Amino acid sequence: MDINQAIAQLDWQKEPRGLYEPIAYTLASGGKRLRPTLALLGTELFGGKEEEVLPAALALEVFHNFTLLHDDVMDRADVRRGRATVHVKWNDNTAILSGDQMMIEAYKLLGQVKEDKLPQVLRWFNQMATEICEGQQYDVDYESREDVRMAEYTEMIRLKTSVLLGNALQTGAYIAGADQESTAHLYNYGIHLGLAFQIQDDLLDVYGDEKTFGKAIGGDILCGKKSFMLLTALHTADAQTKEELKYWLARRDAEPKEKIRAVTALYDRLDVRSEAEKAIREHTDAAINELSYLPANAAREQLQALAEKLANRSN
Amino acid sequence: MDINQAIAQLDWQKEPRGLYEPIAYTLASGGKRLRPTLALLGTELFGGKEEEVLPAALALEVFHNFTLLHDDVMDRADVRRGRATVHVKWNDNTAILSGDQMMIEAYKLLGQVKEDKLPQVLRWFNQMATEICEGQQYDVDYESREDVRMAEYTEMIRLKTSVLLGNALQTGAYIAGADQESTAHLYNYGIHLGLAFQIQDDLLDVYGDEKTFGKAIGGDILCGKKSFMLLTALHTADAQTKEELKYWLARRDAEPKEKIRAVTALYDRLDVRSEAEKAIREHTDAAINELSYLPANAAREQLQALAEKLANRSN
Repeated sequence: MDINQAIAQLDWQKEPRGLYEPIAYTLASGGKRLRPTLALLGTELFGGKEEEVLPAALALEVFHNFTLLHDDVMDRADVRRGRATVHVKWNDNTAILSGDQMMIEAYKLLGQVKEDKLPQVLRWFNQMATEICEGQQYDVDYESREDVRMAEYTEMIRLKTSVLLGNALQTGAYIAGADQESTAHLYNYGIHLGLAFQIQDDLLDVYGDEKTFGKAIGGDILCGKKSFMLLTALHTADAQTKEELKYWLARRDAEPKEKIRAVTALYDRLDVRSEAEKAIREHTDAAINELSYLPANAAREQLQALAEKLANRSN
Repeated sequence: MDINQAIAQLDWQKEPRGLYEPIAYTLASGGKRLRPTLALLGTELFGGKEEEVLPAALALEVFHNFTLLHDDVMDRADVRRGRATVHVKWNDNTAILSGDQMMIEAYKLLGQVKEDKLPQVLRWFNQMATEICEGQQYDVDYESREDVRMAEYTEMIRLKTSVLLGNALQTGAYIAGADQESTAHLYNYGIHLGLAFQIQDDLLDVYGDEKTFGKAIGGDILCGKKSFMLLTALHTADAQTKEELKYWLARRDAEPKEKIRAVTALYDRLDVRSEAEKAIREHTDAAINELSYLPANAAREQLQALAEKLANRSN
């Protein structure tokens, strides 16, 4: 099953164009297609049929892209996957309304799930969608808080990133008829995969290559995001370095490149990168450990390889 | 069943407060509770149980309030039901994110519908939600178009307003086990009721009382909305009056009160109000006619009285 092909076959040639064009544009921008891939692997792991999980897999990809669309408005992000974001290419109102419609499209796809599986799949999906919004709200809240603890950060990224991956795997397995215990292990694999993924994202925001990464480097630094990098720096710095860091964070008028360079230099000095790499390794190992409880087959091998690949990604 | 009480019992005392407070605020602002009332009457008409339709009824009210929340951001509306809108009381990002969560909450409530009815109810709901977004997009598109036809306007308000009323009635009846033909008549009643309702809304935007209406008078005039009033005026005016009207519409710099007064004077001269009242009467009669195909009982009487009441409303 080529998931990109399945996404390309979704029909957006509908009226009014102002509503559907931004949806087509968003979904054509590529991305890793991680969520539908996980849903398919979750099904494959338990010998289920691809065509039965496909509607849910597509729903998850459309929903994920909806969250990116609205997040980009809220974060005033201009570039995503190397292209202008919807609110830049069109305007804020278009991003809001086409985003709303994308969420509805996700539910439409979900509505195609087999009737006997639909109630549970819908309940899980709603729970996951709620947690993503809660995670986004915590992310916003934390930008104006000085005392964010690492445990709060971890919970925030679990909500914002992990639960969608866990849900994809869980839903795929459930549709294939997996037992509850296996489904739970698979969900936990997704949670750790997501945590590793997000810490890697935070790392790439500082040390990534703009062209490969697809978005501007240093965005988290400029908007004061309580990223893994910043929290680690704040928690490990001596008094003087901490003052320096806070000085730069408070300088909202600073020339962006200068600010990014200065904060990155402090991260270098504190070797924050090593701490991030250590955390990524730990969550990757924890994810792979969850796989040991699951059927040993080609799908499991792919899930293991995926965890390793994501831990070493540069985009 | 007191629908206001059921809405008040929904629990928003959850964390993070920044996400849920605006939802509680929006749902506490009152309103006519028209959609859940219609869902309950749809069920009652066919002898169904109130508790079985309640989740869907609440889902419709939450969804409706979500659309108002996002519409108010897009329209830059400051006041709704006599209170500051969410994007004014908080900010745009809060309105976007809490709005998204409200849509998810609607789907959560919908997920509580009995499992044997859920697939169809979900499909109809998704179709209705899509049509509302399409209607909103047409509304936006028409603001910058000079040649909107009355048929386009009618289709736009059918999508933006009517389908939600039709869906509420249809869903209520379906959950009570109504046959397809009856459900279709009830849906059509909702469509006409919605058309009458929206034309009345357009009328009240010009001739309403600000205190009773709950929002600023003349909003449609200021933002160049292709309302029933404006389209009727443009289509019935002689060449000179049409020029006068276009002159005022083009004056985006005009003092708001002066512009509203001038356009209203032109509406007076063209007796647009009578045309609107005629259209409201026609759709109200058409709605009531659909009821003649349905069981003659107390619920049907209430639906008939409701159509009459809405045709004569001032808020």
